[in-house]
Amino acid sequence: MTRDEAFLQFLLRMGDNTLILGHRVSEWCGHAPVLEEDIALANTALDLIGQTQMWLGLAGEADGGKSADDLAFLRDAWDFHNVLLVEVPNGDFGRTLMRQFLFDVWHSIMLGRLMASSDERVAAIAAKASKEVTYHLERSGDTVVGLGDGTEESHARMQDALDYLWPYVGEMFASDEVDAQMVAAGIAPNPADLREEYDALVERVLNQATLTIPESRFAHKGGRDGRMHTEHLGHLLTQMQWLQRAYPGAKW
Amino acid sequence: MTRDEAFLQFLLRMGDNTLILGHRVSEWCGHAPVLEEDIALANTALDLIGQTQMWLGLAGEADGGKSADDLAFLRDAWDFHNVLLVEVPNGDFGRTLMRQFLFDVWHSIMLGRLMASSDERVAAIAAKASKEVTYHLERSGDTVVGLGDGTEESHARMQDALDYLWPYVGEMFASDEVDAQMVAAGIAPNPADLREEYDALVERVLNQATLTIPESRFAHKGGRDGRMHTEHLGHLLTQMQWLQRAYPGAKW
Repeated sequence: MTRDEAFLQFLLRMGDNTLILGHRVSEWCGHAPVLEEDIALANTALDLIGQTQMWLGLAGEADGGKSADDLAFLRDAWDFHNVLLVEVPNGDFGRTLMRQFLFDVWHSIMLGRLMASSDERVAAIAAKASKEVTYHLERSGDTVVGLGDGTEESHARMQDALDYLWPYVGEMFASDEVDAQMVAAGIAPNPADLREEYDALVERVLNQATLTIPESRFAHKGGRDGRMHTEHLGHLLTQMQWLQRAYPGAKW
Repeated sequence: MTRDEAFLQFLLRMGDNTLILGHRVSEWCGHAPVLEEDIALANTALDLIGQTQMWLGLAGEADGGKSADDLAFLRDAWDFHNVLLVEVPNGDFGRTLMRQFLFDVWHSIMLGRLMASSDERVAAIAAKASKEVTYHLERSGDTVVGLGDGTEESHARMQDALDYLWPYVGEMFASDEVDAQMVAAGIAPNPADLREEYDALVERVLNQATLTIPESRFAHKGGRDGRMHTEHLGHLLTQMQWLQRAYPGAKW
């Protein structure tokens, strides 16, 4: 694998994470339990789609002049490189916010490191995205604490959400040849090196939320390296890509 | 509207009903409460898709040599002519079987009349489909009675299902210029003329099921004449059509 190929993979991983999570969060539009949450979720989705535009825009340049739209709407499931965590169905409001929190912590730490990237374009995207993600994390963390340390019902739902999602956390810290090349080039950190900081922050918030972190470190994998996605990604793509598939090249 | 145009509309209405209901029922594959029901639902879906092949095959001939696949996979929502009843989401098993029963009764009566159609091709399709639909009706009727006159829980769910679906029944008996032309040509009956027989059969079964038919005759309309479908049809099409949209002309 050349350095250029590895760089493209790295960009797809960043952009596919924000694209797929952004689409999932946008599914809440008009359905959230209260108006303020509806607007907050829509804003989060918009931030993530905006970041996608930057990551996949850069990936498209690295991929022979494709556009971010080409990459978002014309690839099939096996060419996506997001972690499985972001493609699982929303479930209830609690699970959606728990997923957001577990992703936001990783995202926030990752973007902090990428701000020091040797690639100026990567550093610039990270700096812009980091401001938004700091707010995402503040909000998802507060909600996890509020619902976890809330009523009996909300506590039970948040513990269920954590138990369901925890096996998807480990994949965010997997490393392979792509990561090794990015580390060697000074472009991105080794994901494994983020885990200690991640665990410390997650534990602090989940303790405050009176929730119990599952002991197992078993991790579902296959998303970021594109080997095997869950069945949910294909269903998501049918909806996300339908318009460009049915009306190729359609413009606003 | 010429007679040929009216004939095409009539065929699309028949074929779109079986296509969309067949797709909905197929969504149960692998998810039904017991294995025997899973297989029965899959068989029902296959029967309906088989009938679609015949109706839309004939419609394609009438539409300048298109194939049934072209019509199924390459039309957008506004060109579909199914009644709204068949596109509503499955809900629970009870609602799915109640929808099936309410459709099967109409379908069975309609096909009986079409067996005497002045168009031999229509009569032949009706004769073949009628045998399958007789069995569908026997099964859905038995299930409606079994669950309606079952436990408190199953009774309540079946009454909910009936209350939810009843406003979608009236559309099956609406008449317009297409129907007038089909009646004049001796090709198909006036849908309004099927209502008395429908009500008598539905009442008998629902009484046996200890369920109460809602008094209101309000009817949602707009599906069979293609004016306005529910939001559900578009979502269904994204999944049903994705493969042919993403890989145009793909063959087995």
